[in-house]
Amino acid sequence: MWRRARSPQWSEREAKSSAGQIVLDYTESTRADGRMALHDIWGSQVHALMLARQAILSDDDVRRILAPLEEARADAEAGRLTLDPALEDVHMNVESRLIAATGREYGGKLHTARSRNDQVLTDARLVVREELLATEDLTTVLVTTFLNIADNHASAVMPGYTHTQHAQPVTLGFWATAHAALLREDLRRLAAAYRTTNQNPLGACALAGTSFMIDRALTTRLLGFDSVQEHALAVVSGRDFVIESLFALTMLMTNLSRIAEEIVYWTTHEFRTMTLDDAYALGSSIMPQKKNPDVAELARGRTSGVIGRLTEALVMIKGLPLGYHRDLQGDKPALWDAFDTANATLRVLEGALATARFNTDRMLDLTYANFSTATELANFLVSGRRLPFREAHEIVGSLVAWLVDAGKTFRDVGDCVSYLETREQHLDVSLLEEILSPIAAVGRNRSLGGTSPREVERMSHELRLSVDNVAGNIIERRDSIRRAREETARAVAAVLGGASVREALPSVA
Amino acid sequence: MWRRARSPQWSEREAKSSAGQIVLDYTESTRADGRMALHDIWGSQVHALMLARQAILSDDDVRRILAPLEEARADAEAGRLTLDPALEDVHMNVESRLIAATGREYGGKLHTARSRNDQVLTDARLVVREELLATEDLTTVLVTTFLNIADNHASAVMPGYTHTQHAQPVTLGFWATAHAALLREDLRRLAAAYRTTNQNPLGACALAGTSFMIDRALTTRLLGFDSVQEHALAVVSGRDFVIESLFALTMLMTNLSRIAEEIVYWTTHEFRTMTLDDAYALGSSIMPQKKNPDVAELARGRTSGVIGRLTEALVMIKGLPLGYHRDLQGDKPALWDAFDTANATLRVLEGALATARFNTDRMLDLTYANFSTATELANFLVSGRRLPFREAHEIVGSLVAWLVDAGKTFRDVGDCVSYLETREQHLDVSLLEEILSPIAAVGRNRSLGGTSPREVERMSHELRLSVDNVAGNIIERRDSIRRAREETARAVAAVLGGASVREALPSVA
Amino acid sequence: MWRRARSPQWSEREAKSSAGQIVLDYTESTRADGRMALHDIWGSQVHALMLARQAILSDDDVRRILAPLEEARADAEAGRLTLDPALEDVHMNVESRLIAATGREYGGKLHTARSRNDQVLTDARLVVREELLATEDLTTVLVTTFLNIADNHASAVMPGYTHTQHAQPVTLGFWATAHAALLREDLRRLAAAYRTTNQNPLGACALAGTSFMIDRALTTRLLGFDSVQEHALAVVSGRDFVIESLFALTMLMTNLSRIAEEIVYWTTHEFRTMTLDDAYALGSSIMPQKKNPDVAELARGRTSGVIGRLTEALVMIKGLPLGYHRDLQGDKPALWDAFDTANATLRVLEGALATARFNTDRMLDLTYANFSTATELANFLVSGRRLPFREAHEIVGSLVAWLVDAGKTFRDVGDCVSYLETREQHLDVSLLEEILSPIAAVGRNRSLGGTSPREVERMSHELRLSVDNVAGNIIERRDSIRRAREETARAVAAVLGGASVREALPSVA
Amino acid sequence: MWRRARSPQWSEREAKSSAGQIVLDYTESTRADGRMALHDIWGSQVHALMLARQAILSDDDVRRILAPLEEARADAEAGRLTLDPALEDVHMNVESRLIAATGREYGGKLHTARSRNDQVLTDARLVVREELLATEDLTTVLVTTFLNIADNHASAVMPGYTHTQHAQPVTLGFWATAHAALLREDLRRLAAAYRTTNQNPLGACALAGTSFMIDRALTTRLLGFDSVQEHALAVVSGRDFVIESLFALTMLMTNLSRIAEEIVYWTTHEFRTMTLDDAYALGSSIMPQKKNPDVAELARGRTSGVIGRLTEALVMIKGLPLGYHRDLQGDKPALWDAFDTANATLRVLEGALATARFNTDRMLDLTYANFSTATELANFLVSGRRLPFREAHEIVGSLVAWLVDAGKTFRDVGDCVSYLETREQHLDVSLLEEILSPIAAVGRNRSLGGTSPREVERMSHELRLSVDNVAGNIIERRDSIRRAREETARAVAAVLGGASVREALPSVA
Repeated sequence: MWRRARSPQWSEREAKSSAGQIVLDYTESTRADGRMALHDIWGSQVHALMLARQAILSDDDVRRILAPLEEARADAEAGRLTLDPALEDVHMNVESRLIAATGREYGGKLHTARSRNDQVLTDARLVVREELLATEDLTTVLVTTFLNIADNHASAVMPGYTHTQHAQPVTLGFWATAHAALLREDLRRLAAAYRTTNQNPLGACALAGTSFMIDRALTTRLLGFDSVQEHALAVVSGRDFVIESLFALTMLMTNLSRIAEEIVYWTTHEFRTMTLDDAYALGSSIMPQKKNPDVAELARGRTSGVIGRLTEALVMIKGLPLGYHRDLQGDKPALWDAFDTANATLRVLEGALATARFNTDRMLDLTYANFSTATELANFLVSGRRLPFREAHEIVGSLVAWLVDAGKTFRDVGDCVSYLETREQHLDVSLLEEILSPIAAVGRNRSLGGTSPREVERMSHELRLSVDNVAGNIIERRDSIRRAREETARAVAAVLGGASVREALPSVA
Repeated sequence: MWRRARSPQWSEREAKSSAGQIVLDYTESTRADGRMALHDIWGSQVHALMLARQAILSDDDVRRILAPLEEARADAEAGRLTLDPALEDVHMNVESRLIAATGREYGGKLHTARSRNDQVLTDARLVVREELLATEDLTTVLVTTFLNIADNHASAVMPGYTHTQHAQPVTLGFWATAHAALLREDLRRLAAAYRTTNQNPLGACALAGTSFMIDRALTTRLLGFDSVQEHALAVVSGRDFVIESLFALTMLMTNLSRIAEEIVYWTTHEFRTMTLDDAYALGSSIMPQKKNPDVAELARGRTSGVIGRLTEALVMIKGLPLGYHRDLQGDKPALWDAFDTANATLRVLEGALATARFNTDRMLDLTYANFSTATELANFLVSGRRLPFREAHEIVGSLVAWLVDAGKTFRDVGDCVSYLETREQHLDVSLLEEILSPIAAVGRNRSLGGTSPREVERMSHELRLSVDNVAGNIIERRDSIRRAREETARAVAAVLGGASVREALPSVA
Repeated sequence: MWRRARSPQWSEREAKSSAGQIVLDYTESTRADGRMALHDIWGSQVHALMLARQAILSDDDVRRILAPLEEARADAEAGRLTLDPALEDVHMNVESRLIAATGREYGGKLHTARSRNDQVLTDARLVVREELLATEDLTTVLVTTFLNIADNHASAVMPGYTHTQHAQPVTLGFWATAHAALLREDLRRLAAAYRTTNQNPLGACALAGTSFMIDRALTTRLLGFDSVQEHALAVVSGRDFVIESLFALTMLMTNLSRIAEEIVYWTTHEFRTMTLDDAYALGSSIMPQKKNPDVAELARGRTSGVIGRLTEALVMIKGLPLGYHRDLQGDKPALWDAFDTANATLRVLEGALATARFNTDRMLDLTYANFSTATELANFLVSGRRLPFREAHEIVGSLVAWLVDAGKTFRDVGDCVSYLETREQHLDVSLLEEILSPIAAVGRNRSLGGTSPREVERMSHELRLSVDNVAGNIIERRDSIRRAREETARAVAAVLGGASVREALPSVA
Repeated sequence: MWRRARSPQWSEREAKSSAGQIVLDYTESTRADGRMALHDIWGSQVHALMLARQAILSDDDVRRILAPLEEARADAEAGRLTLDPALEDVHMNVESRLIAATGREYGGKLHTARSRNDQVLTDARLVVREELLATEDLTTVLVTTFLNIADNHASAVMPGYTHTQHAQPVTLGFWATAHAALLREDLRRLAAAYRTTNQNPLGACALAGTSFMIDRALTTRLLGFDSVQEHALAVVSGRDFVIESLFALTMLMTNLSRIAEEIVYWTTHEFRTMTLDDAYALGSSIMPQKKNPDVAELARGRTSGVIGRLTEALVMIKGLPLGYHRDLQGDKPALWDAFDTANATLRVLEGALATARFNTDRMLDLTYANFSTATELANFLVSGRRLPFREAHEIVGSLVAWLVDAGKTFRDVGDCVSYLETREQHLDVSLLEEILSPIAAVGRNRSLGGTSPREVERMSHELRLSVDNVAGNIIERRDSIRRAREETARAVAAVLGGASVREALPSVA
């Protein structure tokens, strides 16, 4: 025979040859496929039910097929289904059980009007939507942690940074709500990836659809998909759901990496504005005084890996003509790795932030130490004294320069008053104190989205409502998946209990 | 003075020093900023009007500011505004004109309650939304070209490929609608990037909002933004609109790269299923017989560049604490380059495809030459003769192997009939002819999303409706931008004509 | 105690807490560390011997330390050493055995004048140099396979392609030696990465060296390093050996990807210039006639992953100040993955090529079918008839155009002669036959590096010498490593057998 | 005519059509090619001389060709040669001048035994080797600046960091030599890229060599290449010199990015261990007190761009079969951009560091403030008191914890003595002072590569010798290029002055 048939019996025959082993080792995917075993079985059950409902298989056929699949499902749920690399992938592992149980006559029929091309996409989408829900869930927890920090510290002032230099005083709550607002966008991107993912590829077959009268609406309903992804060739050629998910995860990781970068900065001796709980800081094997932010560093480093994974997926798909190509096998290891990384990172950073101590006294000191209210004074000269902004800016700049030379800060209000006299700006001490106070300053920044405690509280409240909304939506989607799973299970049980498939699946609405 | 003031006068004073020049060369951004000149002026006009409407500036102030801005706008529209690198960026170039015209007293007031941090984001978002509309527009044209191909060739058969090997016959229209369906997803991603982009950052100021009583809803309306992006620190820290736009462009480019890859394949002597029009194929300087698909190759190669740009933006942002950092200056060159590349590629590939000749006779020959209807026969044995799929698969496999050895194809129907007899499958010639005919085969694949001409026509029709819908939406968004521009222009004209700002902008709804 | 001590006892105390478990899961590296167990033990033995040789430890101390390390080594060699994730990494796993065996008093002394920072680099370099040798080895095998193809087919003509279009005839041997020549550069890059890798970091300690009078030359010799990497802070901060290795692997993979791309092209029905052996081609689960080049597709796809890994490493290091950061832990998983991918890909492509059949008849037909000797005729008109090249080019172009229109090829020599008459170029049939013959044409291309069989044979011979040279060099380096390992083993055995360390390690040259 | 001839006359004929313009805009490369104009002319002169020396052209032919090339060279050197995009690339721009001057009869002959495929590689390699020398040059300047810092501050103590936490005291000179040592590796990589680059591709022709009896050794000598790159198909297919150069630049940029990251950290108010000169720090448009490290931030951000460029080149080449493909046109813009970025960054960071003030008093304070000599005490307990390292570590850890709780530091030596008594470690005050003094501590770290001033001075000295060596080597390579250029110029002048080519180029050694 001129080609290697790839029946389940194949491996036994050929595995002896070293070429066979090298090829098998190179092509088998059981490690990445392990995550899809239960979903592969679900997909096969639904496919079998649909074939019978459409009279492509007989009720007897489908009964013989469903029984061993139910056993496989039970084994998989109990963690007893291990995938044999010699059988190459999850599909062949499941199918070989079926054939062992029913013989070739019945077992082989399950593959009618289906190909591994649409089967693997079905499995992967069923997994990815669950992973996305898990990531969304963990993200809502992290957002909530930031909002808790915001509510506890809505009025605590800290230096706001640009260029990593003190710019203006802000509140710690303002900082925390900023992260919450940025992560809110990650929740939006994850939900968009979910919508792309939750479409039914089953029925596309190898690339061209099929001449069998299949019912794609029925498999859509029983698998809990929102809709059919129609065009068969587009189905098997595209990987939009994989890459959009990877992109959503990459963006999330860059946001987590930025949080991690701030943890690294803030926990330095020099900043010391944050102290990690001992459970989230590690020591050194050689330097007994060290308390290292390893978890933040790893979060930062692993973001590189997820960026690399997105690059991998884009490069992989970029050179391919339409149709399935084996290159695409690499999409799953890349995506699983990204999910695992993102979920673990969300968990560990949430823990680190929830238990961290924010050193608000130190923060207040820093806001005084480096002229962070200089803009306030410039603004006063503009609005209170009607100076052009550029002139006000120049006067304040020269005041700051003079104070630096004199080794003084804005706490030396008297000196400031005197200097400003020389520039013909007359302010009394209490007014200038009010202007230069970081606490007063943040209170004044009441513009929409500004750092005033009032705005911080308003934004925190709205973000909390928004996240609650996402959380509710996660529950709804999980319920919808659960209901589909239960409908499948009921139909399988009914058919195995003797009912006809028409009885078991009465209405196709 | 201990620091380099960065007033418009700065460069003259310092440019003599070589350090000054090196630093200026390294930091100035006038090349990338050129694209934002008109938008910077628009943003400044709107900011000035708002400041006056809120009584932060007087009507007289704003009149003196608007007049030179109008002149700058006229110059920019006429292509007479060139940016001086010595003035570092577009903002300073515009502001220096203003100060030259009005003096420091008035000119400097424009910068009240604004920072370059929110200003540059305003400018960039105004540009990006227009670029996105242009890309969407060009994408709809390319989709339409594919749908035209589909309608002209809904029934023309060609080999469908998986693994770049003949798999099953499909129609050329099916192939064309697959690309249309994949590009339809790019339109979705571009529109999502538009929504992220079209939010108002103005009013975030440096990072913390402002104590001036600004009206962000008014600037939102006058600039045609859909809504305010509220959190000031999130505004200046995030670049979601840049990276989501880059991602949408990268995905689009990977889809274009795949089209290009197929053009390269199909125009080889070996495939010769497509012939490019002479206008879209290039010769060789040394080999006179060559006709090369250079445009497709360049499309493929430039996709690498856009992937690199996305990587750049992700890496750039990954390591930054919150707040503005100068690293972010690189976001615009990366994004402009990606837009230019995508738009040019859309244009050239659309032209190449619209004028290409598809060699449908050659395609039909190929579908017979390599057993592409083998699955059809297997399916018949399953559905017509009730064999298990795996057994049918094995019988057809052995038939194919026998034909290959004998140097025959499925056109040798008599031989096929004889061989099948030996496997106890009895089919008469006319039935087998019908089964093995690629044309008949594609007609049978009527499952939802399958390759039958009926399905191709249905999908083409629906895709056309969907793209018309996008096209309508593009027009609406352009209208909305135009209306905002006109409202600003009317208000500016009224104020310059002597009206008060309250009169010029009566209602804030 | 205010910080988490990270003694071997740590995990038991804290693992109960879920925070502890989350942090441990996030930070432990035992999976990637498994590959370094033997090397970690070797490094520790050498460090202990050196400390004793320098009288920092007593002979008694070192004897108590070496004994359990020898047991650990025996266990590791027998595959009995499994790393406990609760002990975080390979170092703590080994050290905890030591402390269990000797008690804290002796076991703890091993860490004198050493840090995990230099220890992990030592381990990694010891592994990486072996991996590099394995990759070099496999690459020489693949080069040899190409040279065998070249020697078997030095005169077989095939179309040479540019732009994937027929350009000029070349020989199959020319194609094979081109790949050999390109892979020869990979051998050069791998050897350069080896030189960067094979330097001794041990003794850098945490970042600053040590006040103990250590002897870095001795550890260099006993570990088989070529030299000391001196600057302690540069040692712990840099990852040049990792990234240069990754780069060498990435370049190798791009070359393998290109080979894979050609396998995909050549095994299409349309090209059919290569046939894979059945052992290296896979079938389809639904299409019985398929014979798919999956191994080539996977090679191509996995190249994307290695590019992603290189990106990962570069991004990881880009943002780090000097000194060790935990981000760097990610360097090993990335590099191991790249090695495994490259080695497996080398193996599988070598097998595929060694067993493939090249369809030289088909190749010859193709060289006639598409005017690939057009340049030959143009060159003759230049050299034999003294026409300017551009004019000769134009005449040949018009001849080709005329033949295409007439449905003829260069096999129709009579027609060519007639047409050329009309352009006032008089050639007789036998001369034109000689000029247009692909076989004659390749024979004429005798310029240095050209496609003539003579040049192909010469280059094949020289490449073979060059690869033999590399192979010899691999053996030398392996011998050198083996000798260092044996010297360590002898010294350990001698000391454990009662000799003093001075006796066991007499001369430090 | 069935194909678009691409003679220099082409554009005029076709540019009217919009398709022609779109294709031209998409395919022309004059912007990136501008950098190669002089090199293209040099290559053409050498090619013409060689053709005449081999009697492929007559002396008269070559004279007519050389004259207009000399004019073009003079124009290019005077900056008067602008490339016309309508002529597509630099080669056609130069050739069209030639044809305009000599007519088709002579001008066309220059392209004998050459193709744009080997021509563009020749041009590019001639440019790249000069760019590499420039980058090496600038890198040696930066290394020297670090060594100057080292020599000025060999004994100034500062905190050494790991995990961005204080680890052990080091000296500022140690930090500076670490950067010098890391950059020394960049010099090695750049020199390796030079060796790969400086090989002669000319004579590979389109892909297969030529039947003309060309002399590649002669062109190698006249163009100053080190050797011939032989295999014609490998020549036109590979881009090793581009990608190795990009890799060397990327590694360099990651090292520069790390320096930039440290500048950002050190110039924060919180660290304030470095002050940038005003010429290298920028102000804020709204915050008058700001002094921002923009140049460091841009260096950091632009590193992302260079990583993206390397990714681009790898992705570009990964999918290509052998032979030239137009995708490869993108290699030059990517590489030019990387060179410009690296060179500008080297220049600006060198300036920033050479003029920066290092606040050594602040550094000394920091070394006392956070227990950075804890390891010293642990080491003393090991070596002086023979405690196991782990036990010493535990005692010191508890001392540190106690001091933190008591608000004390190692400056409180008396308290330390008392506490240690409770742990049964008896040290007198002066001994403990000596142990805990950062200055004394760095003095003790005399291990090879350690932080002691003696080692720093030794390493600085050796690095200086090594860099001098590189500088000398740069001069030698520049001389060698200059000599080749002069030999070409002399031969051209001689031939144009009436000498025969044999006279002008007497010996081929």
